[in-house]
Amino acid sequence: MTELWLIGIGTGHPGHVTLEGRDALRDATTVLIPRKGAGKEDLAHLRHAILNGAGATARVIEFDMPVRDDSLPYQDRVARWHDEIAARWQFALEDAPDGPVALLVWGDPGLYDSTLRIAARLSPAPRLRVIPGITALQALTAAHAIPFNTVNGAVVVTTGRKLRDHGWPAGAETVVVMLDGECSFRTLDPEGVEIWWGAFLGMPEQILHSGPLRAAEPEIIALRAEARARHGWIMDTYLLRKQ
Amino acid sequence: MTELWLIGIGTGHPGHVTLEGRDALRDATTVLIPRKGAGKEDLAHLRHAILNGAGATARVIEFDMPVRDDSLPYQDRVARWHDEIAARWQFALEDAPDGPVALLVWGDPGLYDSTLRIAARLSPAPRLRVIPGITALQALTAAHAIPFNTVNGAVVVTTGRKLRDHGWPAGAETVVVMLDGECSFRTLDPEGVEIWWGAFLGMPEQILHSGPLRAAEPEIIALRAEARARHGWIMDTYLLRKQ
Repeated sequence: MTELWLIGIGTGHPGHVTLEGRDALRDATTVLIPRKGAGKEDLAHLRHAILNGAGATARVIEFDMPVRDDSLPYQDRVARWHDEIAARWQFALEDAPDGPVALLVWGDPGLYDSTLRIAARLSPAPRLRVIPGITALQALTAAHAIPFNTVNGAVVVTTGRKLRDHGWPAGAETVVVMLDGECSFRTLDPEGVEIWWGAFLGMPEQILHSGPLRAAEPEIIALRAEARARHGWIMDTYLLRKQ
Repeated sequence: MTELWLIGIGTGHPGHVTLEGRDALRDATTVLIPRKGAGKEDLAHLRHAILNGAGATARVIEFDMPVRDDSLPYQDRVARWHDEIAARWQFALEDAPDGPVALLVWGDPGLYDSTLRIAARLSPAPRLRVIPGITALQALTAAHAIPFNTVNGAVVVTTGRKLRDHGWPAGAETVVVMLDGECSFRTLDPEGVEIWWGAFLGMPEQILHSGPLRAAEPEIIALRAEARARHGWIMDTYLLRKQ
């Protein structure tokens, strides 16, 4: 593998794919795809629909994702997991034809995604090409038709884990929370906070809810639990703003 | 105007347009475009190239942008300016044919863009559709092939004005700066800070520079001044990370 293309494909709407992304999918020789576990078949289908829509003729090579070792501390666990994924990429690509290898990345390859960190572990280092994609930040604010920031305002983009461990970021007016499997907004003082929440952003299953955090909190928790039970999985994100 | 479509078109690479954006440009009846001042003709050309590439057949209606009243305080000045732009939209669209009106928005309609705030001033309120687009955040990190965030890390997205007025955001590890016409990174203590800077992101004229802030600072200031003099205008953004 001498050329590795990381292609952001957006959050699940086939129309999120950019013209640059579509052309890259068409020009790639090999596409490397993780075999996802049970319950994520709809994501696998979507990926294949995107490849077909682009007119891709690449050889598709699948690999099994390793399992994270939950006995390790968080940062070690993530680092070890990335090492193992990189090893599996190299093993899977041993017999790949010459030419660019593409990876389809949900959202954008730079934003709360491990692909760049895994690619950095490859040896010899491939030539990287990163194709930006629509992230959950844009899909969320577009779905709600709200601005990300206030006039001249700053925004803190953070994770559910950080929100739980450290609370409302000091001095922040707007906070966007990614990678939150635990409705961590529950841990905040809801006074004066509004929330705009979305799940399955851009997909036909998209669910939106918004309002003052105090009232919206139990509603979102219930909506999320119900949708997760129905689909077998869920991806959600939200924006919080202090008045 | 009963339907207003705000279409994010990315940062200047025609390939940043999404498939959803392309289809919307094709389906719109009218496209509303600001007449930009001297020196921005290349942006006007790019906009027309994007419309042609999408196969748009919409009637294109242009309007003149008002001038900001610099004697007012910042927030008042912006609010007054948005009022005036909204009035000009309504005037320009008086004779528009029935059907969806599209506005092409650089980057994404939610991110450091006024279009949603201007649309909120229209009366009667149109039905809004927001189509997400590639932002300078993604274009910057993709061009440098770097992640936006560290593992489980937070990112503060802020403006040049805020950085000048308030310094490095308290406790932040990564800071992305938008709307900075004054190289406000100069006002920071460069100790331990790395910068990844980019101008004309995604365009053929794209310029990138990165390194420890202390060494990169004068280099970026010189690069930016030279490029600005050559093009007559510049758009740039940057990411700062503390080690």
